[in-house]
Amino acid sequence: MSDLLPEKFFIRDAWYVVAWPQELTAERPLARTVLGDDLVLFRTPEGQAVALEDRCAHRLAPLSLGRIESGGIRCMYHGVKFATDGRCADIPAQPGGHPNMCVRHYPLEEKDGFIWVWMGEPGQADASRIMDAPWHSDPHWEPSQGYLHVKAHMGLVADNLLDFGHLPFVHPNTVGAAAQADFSTEVTPLEEGVQTDRWYIDVPASRFHQSVGNFPGHVDAWHCYRWHLPAVMSLDSGSAPTGTGARSKPHGTREGAVEFHHIAALTPQDADHTHYFWIHWRNFALDDPGMTQRVHDNIMSAFAEDQAMVEAQHRAVRRGSHTPMRAILADRALTLVRQQVKKRVA
Amino acid sequence: MSDLLPEKFFIRDAWYVVAWPQELTAERPLARTVLGDDLVLFRTPEGQAVALEDRCAHRLAPLSLGRIESGGIRCMYHGVKFATDGRCADIPAQPGGHPNMCVRHYPLEEKDGFIWVWMGEPGQADASRIMDAPWHSDPHWEPSQGYLHVKAHMGLVADNLLDFGHLPFVHPNTVGAAAQADFSTEVTPLEEGVQTDRWYIDVPASRFHQSVGNFPGHVDAWHCYRWHLPAVMSLDSGSAPTGTGARSKPHGTREGAVEFHHIAALTPQDADHTHYFWIHWRNFALDDPGMTQRVHDNIMSAFAEDQAMVEAQHRAVRRGSHTPMRAILADRALTLVRQQVKKRVA
Amino acid sequence: MSDLLPEKFFIRDAWYVVAWPQELTAERPLARTVLGDDLVLFRTPEGQAVALEDRCAHRLAPLSLGRIESGGIRCMYHGVKFATDGRCADIPAQPGGHPNMCVRHYPLEEKDGFIWVWMGEPGQADASRIMDAPWHSDPHWEPSQGYLHVKAHMGLVADNLLDFGHLPFVHPNTVGAAAQADFSTEVTPLEEGVQTDRWYIDVPASRFHQSVGNFPGHVDAWHCYRWHLPAVMSLDSGSAPTGTGARSKPHGTREGAVEFHHIAALTPQDADHTHYFWIHWRNFALDDPGMTQRVHDNIMSAFAEDQAMVEAQHRAVRRGSHTPMRAILADRALTLVRQQVKKRVA
Repeated sequence: MSDLLPEKFFIRDAWYVVAWPQELTAERPLARTVLGDDLVLFRTPEGQAVALEDRCAHRLAPLSLGRIESGGIRCMYHGVKFATDGRCADIPAQPGGHPNMCVRHYPLEEKDGFIWVWMGEPGQADASRIMDAPWHSDPHWEPSQGYLHVKAHMGLVADNLLDFGHLPFVHPNTVGAAAQADFSTEVTPLEEGVQTDRWYIDVPASRFHQSVGNFPGHVDAWHCYRWHLPAVMSLDSGSAPTGTGARSKPHGTREGAVEFHHIAALTPQDADHTHYFWIHWRNFALDDPGMTQRVHDNIMSAFAEDQAMVEAQHRAVRRGSHTPMRAILADRALTLVRQQVKKRVA
Repeated sequence: MSDLLPEKFFIRDAWYVVAWPQELTAERPLARTVLGDDLVLFRTPEGQAVALEDRCAHRLAPLSLGRIESGGIRCMYHGVKFATDGRCADIPAQPGGHPNMCVRHYPLEEKDGFIWVWMGEPGQADASRIMDAPWHSDPHWEPSQGYLHVKAHMGLVADNLLDFGHLPFVHPNTVGAAAQADFSTEVTPLEEGVQTDRWYIDVPASRFHQSVGNFPGHVDAWHCYRWHLPAVMSLDSGSAPTGTGARSKPHGTREGAVEFHHIAALTPQDADHTHYFWIHWRNFALDDPGMTQRVHDNIMSAFAEDQAMVEAQHRAVRRGSHTPMRAILADRALTLVRQQVKKRVA
Repeated sequence: MSDLLPEKFFIRDAWYVVAWPQELTAERPLARTVLGDDLVLFRTPEGQAVALEDRCAHRLAPLSLGRIESGGIRCMYHGVKFATDGRCADIPAQPGGHPNMCVRHYPLEEKDGFIWVWMGEPGQADASRIMDAPWHSDPHWEPSQGYLHVKAHMGLVADNLLDFGHLPFVHPNTVGAAAQADFSTEVTPLEEGVQTDRWYIDVPASRFHQSVGNFPGHVDAWHCYRWHLPAVMSLDSGSAPTGTGARSKPHGTREGAVEFHHIAALTPQDADHTHYFWIHWRNFALDDPGMTQRVHDNIMSAFAEDQAMVEAQHRAVRRGSHTPMRAILADRALTLVRQQVKKRVA
């Protein structure tokens, strides 16, 4: 069991999505646990988004019960105040404060619709390593988004995303229907991740794509994702009229296509729970809130099917087994990623 | 505490009752934990009753969320199928399967109203060692039956069944009333168990026996059980008109007697929970469903009194104590059985 | 974390308040856990208040499910009876009993409105070491009293009582309002505890004191407590017309003063829960049950504010922290007491 779900599975030297931008306010601190660390998240009245450890360095009371003030947050147990970099800014009745009284500070970036936090040593944080999601600020794309709290180890949720084999079994009535067709998957190892491409050439469009694309005939469809260690998936999917050369991108065209970009960001809460943030951008019906909701609901329905299975799997793994896990041929992408993670953790 | 309730108390080389026959269907697998092992129980469409470990050998998803198919069960995460002997029967998109991918298989027997499973090495299973309950298929006997889920270690539930001393205290208004009379108990060690006999000669019948037996005068009553290691009790009890020689069985007669046979099968779920299956056969009012219910309710009422005490005792034992358990004279039968169990486990 | 909340923090050689006198009856035993020990508390029909370990020395069933009888208590599992000193008084069907079958006995004293129990070796119990609360039997004083069950380590509850620094932050609208004034605190180490004195000379009376004291002008107010290791605080507080010399006690006078005496007795249930018993005596409105209730409600409102913070702090401490606790100047009294406790435990 410890081999399957090591507590130390988690890579700390990484940026993780920990919240939506609108969850951070100057009115009320937000408590959230990430990689086992309790964080307090807030904005100063001046607008700076901040992540600190959710502990007062005096007596360890949670700062998330504190009061946001200009330039920092004040613990409401004994009134010690901390600046946005975690340094003590004020101790009541103790002029001069306390030079060593600091709380841990987590570098934070707000980018493309997500709040990212660096969980490693603060000095190692490099914001340029955060992945880009240019669709978020592009008026030709419209997002749906959602959050799931999964009661399972992040590694099992990642496995689920990295794997096509479960589609016909977990999702027989939704996304799995099309996947039953026997098209091959190209798996390409990356330096820190994996690229997986699945193409369906000259096929009838899926029910949803047809309903929004009104294709006159067959389509070329694609489902291509890139996994970014430790735990972000970016997905490019869609359908174009067949023959337009969708597959030969970048040389082909996607004229008349319905297209989607999707980012799924997994963040371990601890070894038994995972935060799952996703945004799904589309290139059609941009001004239609009904479509935004419909896309949201479609995705959440499919995720609910995954979640039930992954949580049951997690409980089973935690309880142990007389036999170990054994890989099958369909596991190539997840096996690659697991090996990369092991290497990074080691 | 560990001395009182060792986790390793359980004898694995044994047959245990794990379910009622009607709980195993071809429609829906049944998940049940036995001796800490998670089992999936089902029938194939061909009618074979099967017990496997409730894990898919691929990624450990529970097979109890799977689909029963001809000759086996298919995991509904990635579609791997296992035959009734636990061997892999099919892997999607992997012709030839995987020679080493097996789930643990548990020998299973359906006999006399119970589903029995062998928890030791499958090769050691010998169905002839399962005890007989011939009343189950005898038209002169009619069963009542029930199940309790006890939040206590199996050893404490067994103690309770092996002991007459608690009757006047735990059951002052039901079965304990008669027991207050000072009749001696004969305790006879067996090779793997104990025989305990209690006779009440020339006494007024108990209220229940009188109400169903309409005895004109005093009766000879008996309460004789045999404990079978690790955890099955078979009980022979009843009342016959006094002087018919009930005690001198097999030489005496039980003419005009009301008689009962009872089997109580205890199965550890884990170190803190016990499955308790019982069947109680009677030799009168065979076609009277009201009597079947009345017997059921009488027994469950008495067991509820035991259960409350045993669960409180279990919690106390788990929390520890400044003093150890000490045996009293009345503990002879349970002390014998505990010694036999220790010997078997060692 | 283990440094902050050691399980062995607790001093066993001490008297602890475990119940109110009226909670001990001859009708129904009371189960209460103290320092991790499960106790059964009751009165014999003869009126003796008794504390024993809540275990039958036979099979460890809880005596709190037993039956109180003359001179002791009988376990209702198998009928073994124990005398008030824990010795076995009767075993059914075993004349002569069992010389070694004893349950642990805890010396118990009923004094000044509290039930005190000695948790150390019984032979070391010295009732003269129990603190006095003479107001309880003095007709010039009238008590209010209450109980809180705090889900936090006793050490954190003690810290809260030993500290004035939290008043303006946790209680800004109640007791903290007056405390904001910058008056100094005198901290005097005692042999086994600490004395803390805070005086407010020639100030407007607090709202509550003014409403019950009708002072014509300013007052001299005091808030002086003595902490008694391990876990009892006695507090002397009140307001007198300024100039009457309240501060120079015993030489001054308290003529026209409203005065309070308060005892707060903390008793660890275990490392995560604390029993908190308090009595608050006043020297005015002695025959006014409405005032008794008002004082009770005032105190419980303030305690509820503390409790929320202390329980949040406890959870934070249990979950761990990247930084240790660091003392500030205001922590002098609690630091002194923590050092004394460590010395006693070591």
